[in-house]
Amino acid sequence: MSGRMRAAVVRRTGGPEVFRVEDVPEAVAGPGESLVDVVFAGVNYEDLDLRSGHHPHSLPAVLGVDAVGRRRFDGHRVAVLLRQGGGYAQVVAATDAHTVELPDEVDDQQAAALLEQGATGYGALVLAGRLQRGESVAVSAAAGGVGHLTIQLARSLGAGTVVGLASTPEKRKLVQTLGADVALDPADPQLAERLREATGGGVDLFVDSVGGAVLRSAMRGLRPFGRLVCIGWRDEPDEVSTEHLAELSVGCVGFWMRHVVADRRLLRTITDQLFALAGRRELVARIDRIVALDEVGAAHAAMAARDTSGKVLIDVNREVGLLS
Amino acid sequence: MSGRMRAAVVRRTGGPEVFRVEDVPEAVAGPGESLVDVVFAGVNYEDLDLRSGHHPHSLPAVLGVDAVGRRRFDGHRVAVLLRQGGGYAQVVAATDAHTVELPDEVDDQQAAALLEQGATGYGALVLAGRLQRGESVAVSAAAGGVGHLTIQLARSLGAGTVVGLASTPEKRKLVQTLGADVALDPADPQLAERLREATGGGVDLFVDSVGGAVLRSAMRGLRPFGRLVCIGWRDEPDEVSTEHLAELSVGCVGFWMRHVVADRRLLRTITDQLFALAGRRELVARIDRIVALDEVGAAHAAMAARDTSGKVLIDVNREVGLLS
Repeated sequence: MSGRMRAAVVRRTGGPEVFRVEDVPEAVAGPGESLVDVVFAGVNYEDLDLRSGHHPHSLPAVLGVDAVGRRRFDGHRVAVLLRQGGGYAQVVAATDAHTVELPDEVDDQQAAALLEQGATGYGALVLAGRLQRGESVAVSAAAGGVGHLTIQLARSLGAGTVVGLASTPEKRKLVQTLGADVALDPADPQLAERLREATGGGVDLFVDSVGGAVLRSAMRGLRPFGRLVCIGWRDEPDEVSTEHLAELSVGCVGFWMRHVVADRRLLRTITDQLFALAGRRELVARIDRIVALDEVGAAHAAMAARDTSGKVLIDVNREVGLLS
Repeated sequence: MSGRMRAAVVRRTGGPEVFRVEDVPEAVAGPGESLVDVVFAGVNYEDLDLRSGHHPHSLPAVLGVDAVGRRRFDGHRVAVLLRQGGGYAQVVAATDAHTVELPDEVDDQQAAALLEQGATGYGALVLAGRLQRGESVAVSAAAGGVGHLTIQLARSLGAGTVVGLASTPEKRKLVQTLGADVALDPADPQLAERLREATGGGVDLFVDSVGGAVLRSAMRGLRPFGRLVCIGWRDEPDEVSTEHLAELSVGCVGFWMRHVVADRRLLRTITDQLFALAGRRELVARIDRIVALDEVGAAHAAMAARDTSGKVLIDVNREVGLLS
């Protein structure tokens, strides 16, 4: 007999006010799935688009694509990726292929904060970017969720000069404490020249999540045979001409986590690496705040206002009335 | 005192009839240059654009960007790349940084036929494409000047499945004798699916010189983390969106030989590899015809009509009246 669980449910799309914490029937594990009692669930930018109806989605829905908890059948500590959502709840039915057992050295908060964003940074550098030891790396939005991990990963993976782009002096200071040799302002009109100066001739590998003018400058700041890995864009995607790529002898490479998640062995290889680095504290995810299920709407509002710096986690078992 | 030499001179741009074989003062070596007595000079497609005035160029001019001959000061057999032209002549002033000494195992014709096109294929596979052992490779225009060498290079460099695209049954047969496992018709409306079938899921590295519909199908025929290397286009360059690249997790990489020639060490590394393979007959350039200086116009006409298959060389010391 199944039990009940608390979840933040979306019954209609709209603003951050649409979440309702409800007592609902527990998730049910299908074939190839296992129940996981969630400890922390992650809040991601894609959730905001689903909630607002910007990306179509069936309703009612429980959002949330990553979580950490205890697998019910064996009690193992696990991190899970939930391609169908469901994370903002006390129990999830997690696909076994997308479930990773956690080493003792990595605590629940770090694991929950690292999984999605760390795998994105790692995939961008290694799978899409084919980083080789000693190559220079630059990262846009380097104080952001993926960016701050990508900077640390580039360092740990043996990159040469590491450059981080961030829009304020405080963020640039942060980027340097994370291991970047140089921090640049993405609004600098001489950005391409600055990138070439900082790297002694041009960037080997640029990981970009901004697009537009930053992408265009980044392209010109690459050395021949350098490549730009595009993991997203702020406004609209860009068009790149093969003539421009040939004139510079550079590449533009797309990366989407979906292609990692679709390959169980690849996902495992990457998470093994990530958690090994996290266990040695070479990779530390910043956590902005940990909220209760009742506070998910407020967390969405803060993220929409770009008012967070680091991962937002939900402690699905915390009751606001009790603890705050 | 400088001597005289015969050269095919262009005094006005126009059709293949504009060449005049003239007796002119010998080329003069500037600093960092050495005189080379040419044996064979290459004819390349870019020469056709310069002759016709499609690419601007100062006049009068001697065209020709690659040649093989004897370096006058030491008698060494050398191959040279001539970024400023000058190849269609009995003597060239060759930049030392762009001069490669030839091993005994490689004859003059093969060296002249291999240098530019072989380095392009090698650069596309290794520098731009970062080919790894076992990866599948596909090549468009695979019976063409660069293509037929790229197929052989892919094989020698340890590629997995090798696929060649060629437009006629005869060319496809040729492509298979060169070492391709599969030969496909670029006009096949199911090209992307055929590429995925032939490679068991998608191409790792596609070297394209055609663009347009072939490039678009090639992109969809890549596996995740595959890349397309663009070394040219038949009509117009293409626009590629970062959204499309991200949806597929693939890359589009430009490659221009200029960036190899600009780097003396890189050029040397590549030519060493090429000539080592050529010395073991693992890489054999097809030579379509060898013409005299007086026949350069006719050779241009044949190339413009796509009536050649393999490199066109000029035997600069042959006199038509004597030998034909």
